[in-house]
Amino acid sequence: MSTAEFSIIEQFFKAAQHQLPGCVVGIGDDCAILDVPKNTQLAVSTDTLVEGVHFLPDTEPESLGHKVLAVNLSDLAAMGAKPAWVSMAITLPSIDKEWLSKFTAGFFALANQHSVSLIGGDTTQGPLSITINIMGLLPAGKRLLRSGAKVGDGIYVSGTIGGAGLGLLKAKQASAHNEDVDLLSYLQPTPRVLLGQKLLNNASACIDISDGLSADLNHILRASAVGAKLDHDLLPINESVREYARQLNNELWPYSTGDDYELCFTLPKELSEEAMDVMNNCSITKIGVIEKELGLRIDMKNGQLISLDKGYEHFKK
Amino acid sequence: MSTAEFSIIEQFFKAAQHQLPGCVVGIGDDCAILDVPKNTQLAVSTDTLVEGVHFLPDTEPESLGHKVLAVNLSDLAAMGAKPAWVSMAITLPSIDKEWLSKFTAGFFALANQHSVSLIGGDTTQGPLSITINIMGLLPAGKRLLRSGAKVGDGIYVSGTIGGAGLGLLKAKQASAHNEDVDLLSYLQPTPRVLLGQKLLNNASACIDISDGLSADLNHILRASAVGAKLDHDLLPINESVREYARQLNNELWPYSTGDDYELCFTLPKELSEEAMDVMNNCSITKIGVIEKELGLRIDMKNGQLISLDKGYEHFKK
Repeated sequence: MSTAEFSIIEQFFKAAQHQLPGCVVGIGDDCAILDVPKNTQLAVSTDTLVEGVHFLPDTEPESLGHKVLAVNLSDLAAMGAKPAWVSMAITLPSIDKEWLSKFTAGFFALANQHSVSLIGGDTTQGPLSITINIMGLLPAGKRLLRSGAKVGDGIYVSGTIGGAGLGLLKAKQASAHNEDVDLLSYLQPTPRVLLGQKLLNNASACIDISDGLSADLNHILRASAVGAKLDHDLLPINESVREYARQLNNELWPYSTGDDYELCFTLPKELSEEAMDVMNNCSITKIGVIEKELGLRIDMKNGQLISLDKGYEHFKK
Repeated sequence: MSTAEFSIIEQFFKAAQHQLPGCVVGIGDDCAILDVPKNTQLAVSTDTLVEGVHFLPDTEPESLGHKVLAVNLSDLAAMGAKPAWVSMAITLPSIDKEWLSKFTAGFFALANQHSVSLIGGDTTQGPLSITINIMGLLPAGKRLLRSGAKVGDGIYVSGTIGGAGLGLLKAKQASAHNEDVDLLSYLQPTPRVLLGQKLLNNASACIDISDGLSADLNHILRASAVGAKLDHDLLPINESVREYARQLNNELWPYSTGDDYELCFTLPKELSEEAMDVMNNCSITKIGVIEKELGLRIDMKNGQLISLDKGYEHFKK
């Protein structure tokens, strides 16, 4: 660690939070040392955001600090895990103290909200890019996988779909004011951490929607070796998204937009009334049902059944 | 995860290793799930290598796959931890299957040697960069910190110093054959994992040499609130490094070159003869002694004492 790197870490990352339990040695040595509680297992996920690929070059640093943690918290939510620790590898073109100050403010606001502790990382010089490695805790033997969906299970999503996709378009065109709800869905998604923990006792399969509902639901379907039919009229979308899809003359547009970071999950039809009541208080919407026939079909209510199996592609030629 | 990303992971990362114990859920869901054994603590470290900053643009992919894991294993070694699991976030300009095949061959050769299991990661498109998050295990309550050095302790290094620095120059000039020992020190460093685990019962402080001996030893000195005097004649350097320093007319050159990934550590003078025998069988060299007077001094044996407190700077203006 160089002197320059050391002072960045001291100034912006180490001082910005209280040390939380379980972290025996934090930032400042060759490794962090963590105490994983008895009867728990560790859930670990890694996500990278690259400037120009995952976020626009002029993204406000507060939003970026929030988002890079939010997308990783969303992976923990999709497993039903409780957030615990996070490492950050940040590559910066240069040391811009104002930028770093805002970036860390956005990051720690969300970190403190979820009691997640920054335990280490790396700062390097190069094109702007951030990789987060997040660790959460699960009761031993319990987790939400993609592979547990059964024929007859209901298919649900949290929140609304397509707003972040529309927010991205608005951000590119700089056409919305700062408080625009779609823009905020894109810039500052809300990871469904508490919902994930509630689903741990109830859902048969779960994934977070990062690449688009159709792509991510297809991961559940393939992992579970089942198919699905969705009822298009049930899809929870904002009026602005509905209007945009109408302008495009493409009602299916919201299925293929990424970045929502809502959860898509399946609930067994035998779920107790009590459990169903808990679930129904969580802003979730039933959008379809798991079927034996493979593939994802959208029932358009005009007699049409449309197959969907595409989403966001990270590598474009 | 897009289809393109999915097929990269399936083809190059998932199939290339046997699943090792402790990894309950591996690559392919939103998180990996890990079982941390009872009475152990987790050591976690993160390192990023950026093309053009940490490695030359034409670096052979096998060497790069080895090196990115080696520098992270070296952090575990410096804490005395036993390697267990690793996540990799790789950002690639495009999908080059030949490159990926060689890169993963280099990576898994070293991973299998140390029984470390790849549990997940992220593949994204952008300027070439790799971030590794490595996890190792320590007996609960035991670890090698930078902060334990005491006045009177001996200062030691493993292997030889400065070879990787000379290897970097040779790589830049393409002036060496593939088997050149300095070039290999730079391209394919050997992490001192077993030495680290032996030091766990014996050393009072430890760090790995990534930024240069003077910079890294200074981290120990500051963390331990002590100083040090090194005997220049005792520094273990290859003849090629000695000759290069002579050409430069700068005998101190090897203290400031990075990338050696040897361990620098302190042993109490009261260490038992038996423990000392174990240590002496590990290719280590005593180079100096911890003193009360702060700062790092090199005794040049011509009556000169030279102060050193600089190393590699990640951020250059």
